[in-house]
Amino acid sequence: MTTLESAARTTAARTPRVDGPAKVTGAAQYAADIPVRGLLHARLVLSPHAHARLLSVDADEARGVPGVVAVLTAADLPISGGSGSRAFEPLARTEVVFAGQPVAMVVAESEAAAEDGAEAVLVEYEELPAVVDVERAIAPGSPLTRLEGGAAADDMEMHTEVGESSAGEGEAEPVSANVIGRYHHADGDVDGAFASCAAVAQGRFRTQWVHQAYLEPQAAVAWVDPEGRLVVHASTQGHFFVRGLLSHVLGLPTSRIRVFGATLGGAFGAKIGLIEPLVGAAALVLQRPVRLVLTRSEDFAAANPAPSCLMDVRIGATADGTLAALDARIVVDAGAFSEYGGAALASGRIGGPYRWGAWRVGTMGVTTNRFGAGAYRAPSAPQTAFALESLVDELATALGMDPVELRLRNAPERGDRRIDGATWPGIGLRETLEAARAHPLWARRGSLPPGEGVGLAAGLFPGGRQGAGAVCRLETDGSLVVTVGAIDMSGTGTGFAEIAAETFGVPVESVNVLTPDTDSAPPAVLSGGSMVTYSVGPAVAAAAAEARDHLLRAAAAEMEIDPADLEIVDGKVRPVGSPGLGMTIAEIAAKTGGFGARYAPVTGSASALPPELAPSACVNIVHVRVDADTGVVDVLGHVAVQDVGHALNPALCEGQMRGGATQGIGWALYEQLVHDEHGNLVTGSFLNYAIPRSEQVAPIETIIVEVPAPHGPLGAKGIGESAVVPGAGAVANAIKAATGVRMHELPMTAPRVWRALQSR
Amino acid sequence: MTTLESAARTTAARTPRVDGPAKVTGAAQYAADIPVRGLLHARLVLSPHAHARLLSVDADEARGVPGVVAVLTAADLPISGGSGSRAFEPLARTEVVFAGQPVAMVVAESEAAAEDGAEAVLVEYEELPAVVDVERAIAPGSPLTRLEGGAAADDMEMHTEVGESSAGEGEAEPVSANVIGRYHHADGDVDGAFASCAAVAQGRFRTQWVHQAYLEPQAAVAWVDPEGRLVVHASTQGHFFVRGLLSHVLGLPTSRIRVFGATLGGAFGAKIGLIEPLVGAAALVLQRPVRLVLTRSEDFAAANPAPSCLMDVRIGATADGTLAALDARIVVDAGAFSEYGGAALASGRIGGPYRWGAWRVGTMGVTTNRFGAGAYRAPSAPQTAFALESLVDELATALGMDPVELRLRNAPERGDRRIDGATWPGIGLRETLEAARAHPLWARRGSLPPGEGVGLAAGLFPGGRQGAGAVCRLETDGSLVVTVGAIDMSGTGTGFAEIAAETFGVPVESVNVLTPDTDSAPPAVLSGGSMVTYSVGPAVAAAAAEARDHLLRAAAAEMEIDPADLEIVDGKVRPVGSPGLGMTIAEIAAKTGGFGARYAPVTGSASALPPELAPSACVNIVHVRVDADTGVVDVLGHVAVQDVGHALNPALCEGQMRGGATQGIGWALYEQLVHDEHGNLVTGSFLNYAIPRSEQVAPIETIIVEVPAPHGPLGAKGIGESAVVPGAGAVANAIKAATGVRMHELPMTAPRVWRALQSR
Repeated sequence: MTTLESAARTTAARTPRVDGPAKVTGAAQYAADIPVRGLLHARLVLSPHAHARLLSVDADEARGVPGVVAVLTAADLPISGGSGSRAFEPLARTEVVFAGQPVAMVVAESEAAAEDGAEAVLVEYEELPAVVDVERAIAPGSPLTRLEGGAAADDMEMHTEVGESSAGEGEAEPVSANVIGRYHHADGDVDGAFASCAAVAQGRFRTQWVHQAYLEPQAAVAWVDPEGRLVVHASTQGHFFVRGLLSHVLGLPTSRIRVFGATLGGAFGAKIGLIEPLVGAAALVLQRPVRLVLTRSEDFAAANPAPSCLMDVRIGATADGTLAALDARIVVDAGAFSEYGGAALASGRIGGPYRWGAWRVGTMGVTTNRFGAGAYRAPSAPQTAFALESLVDELATALGMDPVELRLRNAPERGDRRIDGATWPGIGLRETLEAARAHPLWARRGSLPPGEGVGLAAGLFPGGRQGAGAVCRLETDGSLVVTVGAIDMSGTGTGFAEIAAETFGVPVESVNVLTPDTDSAPPAVLSGGSMVTYSVGPAVAAAAAEARDHLLRAAAAEMEIDPADLEIVDGKVRPVGSPGLGMTIAEIAAKTGGFGARYAPVTGSASALPPELAPSACVNIVHVRVDADTGVVDVLGHVAVQDVGHALNPALCEGQMRGGATQGIGWALYEQLVHDEHGNLVTGSFLNYAIPRSEQVAPIETIIVEVPAPHGPLGAKGIGESAVVPGAGAVANAIKAATGVRMHELPMTAPRVWRALQSR
Repeated sequence: MTTLESAARTTAARTPRVDGPAKVTGAAQYAADIPVRGLLHARLVLSPHAHARLLSVDADEARGVPGVVAVLTAADLPISGGSGSRAFEPLARTEVVFAGQPVAMVVAESEAAAEDGAEAVLVEYEELPAVVDVERAIAPGSPLTRLEGGAAADDMEMHTEVGESSAGEGEAEPVSANVIGRYHHADGDVDGAFASCAAVAQGRFRTQWVHQAYLEPQAAVAWVDPEGRLVVHASTQGHFFVRGLLSHVLGLPTSRIRVFGATLGGAFGAKIGLIEPLVGAAALVLQRPVRLVLTRSEDFAAANPAPSCLMDVRIGATADGTLAALDARIVVDAGAFSEYGGAALASGRIGGPYRWGAWRVGTMGVTTNRFGAGAYRAPSAPQTAFALESLVDELATALGMDPVELRLRNAPERGDRRIDGATWPGIGLRETLEAARAHPLWARRGSLPPGEGVGLAAGLFPGGRQGAGAVCRLETDGSLVVTVGAIDMSGTGTGFAEIAAETFGVPVESVNVLTPDTDSAPPAVLSGGSMVTYSVGPAVAAAAAEARDHLLRAAAAEMEIDPADLEIVDGKVRPVGSPGLGMTIAEIAAKTGGFGARYAPVTGSASALPPELAPSACVNIVHVRVDADTGVVDVLGHVAVQDVGHALNPALCEGQMRGGATQGIGWALYEQLVHDEHGNLVTGSFLNYAIPRSEQVAPIETIIVEVPAPHGPLGAKGIGESAVVPGAGAVANAIKAATGVRMHELPMTAPRVWRALQSR
């Protein structure tokens, strides 16, 4: 284990993000920037009702608006089946299930005409009872969120692997048909275990819907090319995923679809095929290019934010601090459709990064007439960690034990069981906690002024893995080109450049990493689930290693020496230990191309699927001051400690850690999408949806811990998601330390904190 | 050896060209069709003089034409150095060296404005003596074709490998500075060998400049992308080649250049970076997209046709028909620049496909004020074969020997020396001649009406080889995607699909072959030199084989069986000999992608460079009728016999053979670019430049011979170029048979034949 308190301690390069200059100079081409001849512009007509029958759409006046080419409704789209699935219902069919749901799309020669047209569309609705409260939605006899068609099972396992025991029979609790998924994990004598506990902590915890708040709204352009293929340029986390989705929804073979992933202006889980089925279908119908770029208001109203959770959790520990029992009932708002698997994920997450003696966890996914639910960085993890880490601190208090010590005693070892039945691979929780405990801020927690407190929480995201390929070629000028199928969402391209450079033996500046379109990119699934560096990286490393072998064989032939006697140092291939001899890579590369080449081009390729997950543990220490008069919580200090496996690029690791910590502050203190009782969105813009402003975020100190992943590229782990997990719990524990008050609901806004302080 | 007299004899699929439907339905996107926002249109100002000082360019009036954005001259372009090189002088600098040379480019918002602008440019010239006749150009004291700067050595070895002895000291003949390259091949006692000969034949043969007559004129579009990279879409045979050329000429690293090869509307050797330096430079200067599409007139005047040859050749054979001696002096018109290596190529070609006892060959490349010279299908081979095959027939007559028999006796064996010092690999000349001799048309040659005759000639193109990569991936629907770096000029993509399909074990319809742009394509040089199928094909085969192994490993894991016990039959992976068992490829493929994939994606890649050439021998038998009153030659029958190594797709082989034979008829009877004494082009359009019309081409019967290439993909050889080589010689020999007259100049137009008949 290595702990890096500053970048100076690592030898890895702090290479700036290769995608940075284009983004900061405005040169990057986002999906909305792609030039397309004959482009049509689209504007959506959104439902003002959370639940209604869609009686009629009168588009006559809209069609009369100069420039309007078409007004499309669900019946116009070449999509059938899939009732209850959002992908199959990009426009509402006969029933509207959330306020903001698209019911029609106006397509016009200009943005302005499309907007005028959308305002002229007259839609007749018959309002139906809106189901907004998950607890009422569960109850037998609740109004249904959808009358026609039905929601399918909660079946998507996108963001991590769900252990084998995850799907199973729920408890006997009778529920309404709004419950679309039930997950049950249990082992051991839970009641007996609680009876043996020296301390028990419990509580009911709530979180709200949270928007991913990407800078670039959802955007896609689609057209039919002269050969009849559907071409899509999208702001997406996964162009291969989108291709597969379009194939499924539109009934086209994948070979008839070509998807380009444009430069991504933020996504965080939200850009996984949301608007592409609609835009693609429109292009097929109209046989002209169609572009849809959501306005910020549409993006708030009609996108796919992260769902709320209601968690009743009870945990107990024996006198020596062993976590003996866990009992939890979790309700995840699945939103209005059937696709999002938040409940299945939450079910495993509630165990946190710990080993348990006995457990009984029941989770329900429940539809409501809110949004369609989507993924957001570490789905279901910040919510469950908020509940669990709050209770772990309560347990430590009850036991009179240091909260770090309590956590350390329950860190799982490789092979221990997870509560969802899977087994733990090696995780760096212990090393991460130790590094956090050593930080001065943690030592200062006993000597703070009144109203201030320091809290700590741990978190973990199990990460994902995907099969992926990579292709590598040495250009004749000695530079290396690496192609992958993964979209660069978070600087992964820079990491791949570093992996290839280190493996091949060239400076990172000599490596170009590209993600071609789905026609010619190596396979990948999508960017998400902290699985890009971890899954695609090994393929990059293996491809670069193959190309390196290839180069050495050519160099050996050229120098008439055994390849095993060569090494690559400083851009030069030379006999081992002979700095004065050898040839530069560029000199050899020049002999592999063009007319009269002496050697075949130097290439390599690989395909990989890591055999196990490599979770990244993260600990946050937060220092807060709570204003007792207003309930305002100021974050004064924030330390993020994370096991990254191996810091391919400390600067990028720190960027992920800071970004995650900042979003954690958003979860903790600010962010909530609020509906009124009728299901109307109250917080539909950044004027009333609060994300942390820069002055609300304390300087975030980062501590990189390196516990190598056995199968990660150079030991690296996927780190994007764990970074956001512990934030809310750490702030809650800090508020408790500062005020003695235990918060049970996110975000911990000033009014909520003030009320809690009043009831103290 | 297998001879296929009809397609029914081969088991290979007669798959239609995969690029066919898009081309015949108008769906294909040629370079001029690429949509570009803010496109500027370019029109050239061409020199009316063959040789002149360029005194001034007055663009004031042109700049005043509404819509004209810029008038560029050489001084405006970011190009320096390379005097005498056409690539470095896309616009004339201070001296014009051929009539038709671009001196300025007008760039405007519309085609019409550019045209009006070009007409308004006033250029002041000071005429200089034009050198048009190669014989006069050679003579010491000749006016020079270029006064300023100088032509570099004749150094391009694009179309084949030139044997080691090819560059050397010429004879003592004193020459002018217009001679830019001299090549000398000699071995043995030539004069002594002639003295021992039972028969000697000799003659002076001439051929003219010939245009490649592609359907789609030269076209390219270039722009600077938002990241500052130069992007070029071009009608080109080699996008990697163009990238390298642009890097060289514009002084940019290759990583700053991205070239897309558009669908190619014919090329035949002419589209290898002719206009891209100009268009790319203009885009860099103007920082706006620039498109140049030559008009047909510009394409005739300003492009790069095949040069003329003047050949004095003497050959002799001993009484048993052994070719004992060859003495040749060849003058190749190199045109106005230094780049084209026709002389070096011709120097080796004059030996034909035969083994010689002793030889002495001197070749000169001479600049004239005609065109810039370019490559045309089998550069220098139709010309030299016309001379040599005419003399071989004369020799057979003199010896009283069957002309086929004479050729057979001198067919080289593997390891025999070529006259350029290289050694012969195995060639299928013997088998091809035997197949030709067995054809009924050859037997009929003694029993034809007066005025008719049958002639035969052999030809060979040594072919080329290039290092190339290929990447293969199995899509999750079971289809196979193959990416290569070679542009599909002649149906090679269909051949690659067949190689991959046969290697992998899927139907050819399941294979997609793609050539991505230079950013993401596997390496290749260009399409030409009959080296695409032969050089890239093995990489495709190896990549497909690697992917097949990969698939079998996944299938074996899934079926819990040893991979060695599996076979792929009819799209199914099954235990050997168990038709009822196994899984479809698609079923296994589905387990290699998406979330929860059990296996890594199935991929393969390879890089290859064939270790030797694989020449393809071709024999044509032509039946003509000569009208004694007019000299008109009608082709009544045409048999093309060619060794293709292995017919990957007989239909495509036949297409190449028919196309080559037709162009051979063009060489023989019709095509010539004529200049007047001042160097002005007289034949500047298809109104006066004659290519064979359909009614002038006899039905061409094709006979495929298969002598497998040891290193070719499935034994295949490159076949594109040999097909055109023997045509003119066969027609000349048929005219001799019909009339007794030996023709010495191409094309054998009616006036030339009539004059020859008159002097009979």
